[in-house]
Amino acid sequence: MLNFSPQEYLSVENGAARLAEPINAAIRRELDGGMRNIAFWGAGGVAFLTLPAVRLLQTKSTFPTIADMGAEVVHTGNVNVGEGTLVVFASVSGTTKEAVAALEFAKAQGARVLTLTGTQGTPLAELADINFHNDCADPTSSENFYLQTLFIALSIMHHRGEFPEYDRVVAELQTLPDALVGVKEQFEERASAFAEDIKDEQHHVITSAGGAWYEAWYYSMCILEEMQWIWTRPIHASDFFHGTLELIESETSVWVIKGEDEARALSDRVERFVPTVSSKLRVFDTKDFALPGISDDVRALISPIVIAAAFERLSTHLERVRDHDLTIRRYYKKGDF
Amino acid sequence: MLNFSPQEYLSVENGAARLAEPINAAIRRELDGGMRNIAFWGAGGVAFLTLPAVRLLQTKSTFPTIADMGAEVVHTGNVNVGEGTLVVFASVSGTTKEAVAALEFAKAQGARVLTLTGTQGTPLAELADINFHNDCADPTSSENFYLQTLFIALSIMHHRGEFPEYDRVVAELQTLPDALVGVKEQFEERASAFAEDIKDEQHHVITSAGGAWYEAWYYSMCILEEMQWIWTRPIHASDFFHGTLELIESETSVWVIKGEDEARALSDRVERFVPTVSSKLRVFDTKDFALPGISDDVRALISPIVIAAAFERLSTHLERVRDHDLTIRRYYKKGDF
Repeated sequence: MLNFSPQEYLSVENGAARLAEPINAAIRRELDGGMRNIAFWGAGGVAFLTLPAVRLLQTKSTFPTIADMGAEVVHTGNVNVGEGTLVVFASVSGTTKEAVAALEFAKAQGARVLTLTGTQGTPLAELADINFHNDCADPTSSENFYLQTLFIALSIMHHRGEFPEYDRVVAELQTLPDALVGVKEQFEERASAFAEDIKDEQHHVITSAGGAWYEAWYYSMCILEEMQWIWTRPIHASDFFHGTLELIESETSVWVIKGEDEARALSDRVERFVPTVSSKLRVFDTKDFALPGISDDVRALISPIVIAAAFERLSTHLERVRDHDLTIRRYYKKGDF
Repeated sequence: MLNFSPQEYLSVENGAARLAEPINAAIRRELDGGMRNIAFWGAGGVAFLTLPAVRLLQTKSTFPTIADMGAEVVHTGNVNVGEGTLVVFASVSGTTKEAVAALEFAKAQGARVLTLTGTQGTPLAELADINFHNDCADPTSSENFYLQTLFIALSIMHHRGEFPEYDRVVAELQTLPDALVGVKEQFEERASAFAEDIKDEQHHVITSAGGAWYEAWYYSMCILEEMQWIWTRPIHASDFFHGTLELIESETSVWVIKGEDEARALSDRVERFVPTVSSKLRVFDTKDFALPGISDDVRALISPIVIAAAFERLSTHLERVRDHDLTIRRYYKKGDF
């Protein structure tokens, strides 16, 4: 595989998987200590990586779960956040200024703070009441944070008796990093060919539903736009039929990213519609990947993780065929606006 | 003003304003009857019109407030919705199939259903436990639903002692329709000129924050994309700095839509950044509009409504200069996918 070290990858993702038990113990202590709700206060794309866990809690658990934009909540406040709230932040760099400001705001409200960081010795690691640190970088951070926030969600449900399958599911997730290397191997050839296909294209409509939607949204904004300067129109598969569909013409590129949770049917609808108009339907389906030892219910939970693992291959091949380094930024963090 | 009847407009928006008291009485009855939480289950752009009220409740009230996508929740379910939940739907046509399916799903869970409809004798009007009907159509529906959902939110906070200014604010909102006609008059000339300016442009980055963000998002998807087939990239002003900014070049069109609530500072950031790169910064600021008799705190609440009233003028002029009827659809509701 191009520019890929299985050893480094497994080191990061096994590091994330090993945090299941420490996270579970921390959540137990917080619940025992009076945690009454949990808030996820992200900034930028990394916030999207927490949203599959947020939506799992908001739909399958009665534990009150809040999602605010970190940059906005410092201005608006949130009366539901204070003593008894655990506020969660994730950050690769550990320095994102909106997240640091939101962390300080959370503490000033009397909340406790849990951070998941990819870099040690940083403000987000050191200012937290609870920090879980696992070295990661852009090509490995998505799976890393999806996994850790999933552990937080599953642990809350486990301790509240809302998730009887906890032990089995977490045991399966311990084996996921190896399976994800397999996903990358299975996708490598298609990634290379697809990168060639689209190397001169702009303006992709990118759609999905359920947990995979957050990865579709993340990949659009943080990889295609930020790292390759390719325009996207991320649109949820449900919203697609309420406006954006009118843009589609015979050559319009539409990506349909299909996960295996209950919302899959919404992506199926887009998949049926697009070929009636455009010749450029691009379907990416987690079902196409073998994941040895992973049960169907876990496959549904990890659909965004599988897409992230596969699409990192696409990013690497886009970098190659477009001769566009994934680390170049024109503006990001360069000015003080 | 082009294609505009103040009488018809005032008839719709005064109709919405007059619903404040019936809505307040209904909410009182629901609370007395044991309402323990409220859910907004929208489908498509009209769901965005409920989100300023949702976010008001989620940040300024301790009353549990749920927002799900109607098309998704019928697949995923939501364990927090059932007996004691009031589920709210808004629809112009009253027939949107995703909303009808979600309404039936809500009732099957034991929830009560409140609908806001723009057309009488329709499934969404007739299947509800509580229906508020006010005739409206595309050019008037945004203000109509923003207002009614705002009344729901303010009423909940009022009855729970969370909003002492209720009587004054609702009294001011009764005068809003006249002020909105004034907004349209103030914007007419700019709308005409700006429509000329952009008539051949595609690919607008459209950004905002706070309550106005939902109108920015709505206008992108439901007007520019659906009704004019103009590509947009709606992006929250906070997320803008975490990816999408890398797309900006010297001729990239960026709309910054500024409201007057606490999140305004986030739009200011984009407004400072864009001119360092692009000559096509387009700022739309609710502060530019005189709103006689409306206090600053109410101006903050109604920023999305003011933008909606102004931008309807822009739509009408885009229709004229682009010779593109706002009611033409290539695909919407034409196939069964």
